[in-house]
Amino acid sequence: MGRASREKSREICCWQCNHQPSSHVIAPTHDGCDARNLRLETRTATPETRRVYWKKITLVGVGLLGGSLGLALRKRRSAKTVAGFVRRKASVTESQRLGAVNFATQDLRQAVEEADLIVLCTPIAQMLPLVKQMLPALKPGAVVTDVGSVKDSVVRALESLLAKAGAHFVGSHPMAGSERTGVAAACADLFVNAVCVITPTRRSNQAALREVEQLWKAVGARVLRLPPEVHDELVSRSSHLPHVVAAQLANLILSPDQPKEQGMLCASGFRDTTRIASGSPEMWRDIALANRQNLLRALTAFGNGLRDFKRILRSRDDLAISEFFEQARQRRDRWSASAGSSSPE
Amino acid sequence: MGRASREKSREICCWQCNHQPSSHVIAPTHDGCDARNLRLETRTATPETRRVYWKKITLVGVGLLGGSLGLALRKRRSAKTVAGFVRRKASVTESQRLGAVNFATQDLRQAVEEADLIVLCTPIAQMLPLVKQMLPALKPGAVVTDVGSVKDSVVRALESLLAKAGAHFVGSHPMAGSERTGVAAACADLFVNAVCVITPTRRSNQAALREVEQLWKAVGARVLRLPPEVHDELVSRSSHLPHVVAAQLANLILSPDQPKEQGMLCASGFRDTTRIASGSPEMWRDIALANRQNLLRALTAFGNGLRDFKRILRSRDDLAISEFFEQARQRRDRWSASAGSSSPE
Repeated sequence: MGRASREKSREICCWQCNHQPSSHVIAPTHDGCDARNLRLETRTATPETRRVYWKKITLVGVGLLGGSLGLALRKRRSAKTVAGFVRRKASVTESQRLGAVNFATQDLRQAVEEADLIVLCTPIAQMLPLVKQMLPALKPGAVVTDVGSVKDSVVRALESLLAKAGAHFVGSHPMAGSERTGVAAACADLFVNAVCVITPTRRSNQAALREVEQLWKAVGARVLRLPPEVHDELVSRSSHLPHVVAAQLANLILSPDQPKEQGMLCASGFRDTTRIASGSPEMWRDIALANRQNLLRALTAFGNGLRDFKRILRSRDDLAISEFFEQARQRRDRWSASAGSSSPE
Repeated sequence: MGRASREKSREICCWQCNHQPSSHVIAPTHDGCDARNLRLETRTATPETRRVYWKKITLVGVGLLGGSLGLALRKRRSAKTVAGFVRRKASVTESQRLGAVNFATQDLRQAVEEADLIVLCTPIAQMLPLVKQMLPALKPGAVVTDVGSVKDSVVRALESLLAKAGAHFVGSHPMAGSERTGVAAACADLFVNAVCVITPTRRSNQAALREVEQLWKAVGARVLRLPPEVHDELVSRSSHLPHVVAAQLANLILSPDQPKEQGMLCASGFRDTTRIASGSPEMWRDIALANRQNLLRALTAFGNGLRDFKRILRSRDDLAISEFFEQARQRRDRWSASAGSSSPE
């Protein structure tokens, strides 16, 4: 088979075809597959360079995460068209100029029409109203996912709503980001090696679930399935708690009430510990409210630990103080050593 | 004047000579200068490339900070000899092999004899016993400084002790470091652009004070003078509090009591917020104990802030939550913008 022939694009049934040894022949339809016109293009016969093509993926919101996803999909040639819905006119030009999308529009229905896959990349509080607006324009069987940092409330709000409209919702949360915001901060490799949590429920469509997983794998993420409520409990500790802590450190240490030299005595330790405090206030307000109960519990557990430390410090218990710091070092070093190598799959 | 002549090393009175426009002629003795046999070598007539040479600088402890100081001094040719005192035989070879010192020894008195300048680079709890041991071997007028993260107790313990022995102590605290430890992690540019706090008292010898400042300037640091007790209050917030907070985050989030997926949901935010928790437990135990009262106050203020946040979160006060995150972002962004450009001098 010649190169030209191998490079020919063809209709296939679903992302699973990419796993077949002979993916340059038209693959059979799998059980449960809802034939969603995904396109596979095999540029060479080697599996490493095969490309899955979605005909149209729409990013609802083209900021840091949406923009990075667009750049990643376009770099990897995973979609024929990446469309973007944006709020402001200036964002239409900017997201196109930066190459994050093939085209951007302020018209939500135009953005999502004919899309196979729609990714909600807005702050979570905006997701429900936007989905309500887009319902009439959705293609039957369209798959919708999101990048929100809280899953239980999002999944509850969107799963049945989209199912009633003949579409499928599966939540996802790529554990990648930056304290910077906006499409100008987007990066095509943001998701490479990041863990992306997918949060199916008993009602999830299996083909839609696999397709969402394939999206994140296509941009280099490592996929982990968790129930939405388990995800929310875990991230309240690993992500939302550190954010509140970093913000409170910045608020206290850099308060105008402190002596004028205070800022000059903040060095690299302070810089790294508080980096995430520069993140979007609106996004973090939404996250804190959406994961309120878990976050309150995490803050209480954290506060109890600090109270215990104050007690051993007050009583000059040097052994217990050593143990506190030694345990922290051991736990973090072990995590750090495993974080780079472990795969959640 | 020929190049050979310009490159000739000559005895000068003190570091101030380096500021003179014609420093290639022998400089006059300044008032209050205790003629400490510093050597100035002018390699060219341009001020940028002049080198101040101390005849002998001794680093007591050649770990991350001592090793970095040795590398920096040797790279900048600021001392004829950099000697190192180390505890373990293996460290003699290692610190010499890495170029952090001209020679290292396990004999403290041999290390400090004839030294113009001695820098204590050990954990703070070891400083007093080591200084007591070295007293008989000190050259009259020797200047002793340190790199400890707490200053009031160190200055109180060492200032009068060294004055009685005919030497001078001036405390310093270079605000640079790493979670890594040991001479293998040392870096010649660790102090470049770092703030170094110098903590003179009313009893400090002025020439010794200037010499300690010159040491830190020679390795690229920006010098800031503060009273020891003011320094300790400021770093309890900007450095010691973030360290305890980072350690407590690591202890809680990476506890074996958490679900097994917890570590996989720790991403770059967690990584940066807890980086310093990988620092030396012994060093941080000493620091916490030495700055106990200030650290307890900082922890209380921090805990009060978290308690306030929990209150607004519990009552779903979205405006107050936004303000909490917005204020943190503004304060940190302002600090971040000024940290790179501001000079404490």
